[in-house]
Amino acid sequence: MANDICVKFGRRLWELREERGWNQKYLAEISGIGRTHISQLENGRREAGLRMLETLADAFKLRLADLLEGV
Amino acid sequence: MANDICVKFGRRLWELREERGWNQKYLAEISGIGRTHISQLENGRREAGLRMLETLADAFKLRLADLLEGV
Repeated sequence: MANDICVKFGRRLWELREERGWNQKYLAEISGIGRTHISQLENGRREAGLRMLETLADAFKLRLADLLEGV
Repeated sequence: MANDICVKFGRRLWELREERGWNQKYLAEISGIGRTHISQLENGRREAGLRMLETLADAFKLRLADLLEGV
């Protein structure tokens, strides 16, 4: 399970959010993604598609490739 | 439509495949993804999720971040 790409991406998402000192509620507000959805993504319990990845990259002001760096 | 992330990724996928001189059938064989599915991805008519992106990155022997470079 730990090697699953969704779990790995969830960890990356958590790191990017924590680095900025944002809580899930703030990321939800600026991205328009529901807070529960963010929590599920961070826990690897939900798979992000390209459009979700783009929305997240925009929220973090990152390129898509940078969002997925190290995943 | 042209700015849609799925269309942009489809173009990237097409470029990566053409650069290697692979046809869709060959990419289908080495990735295990159906040829029709590949065609729909390349035409931006289907959205790839993280697991599909990982499968494609593996087929091209690229990191996920490299697969999405420039998208």
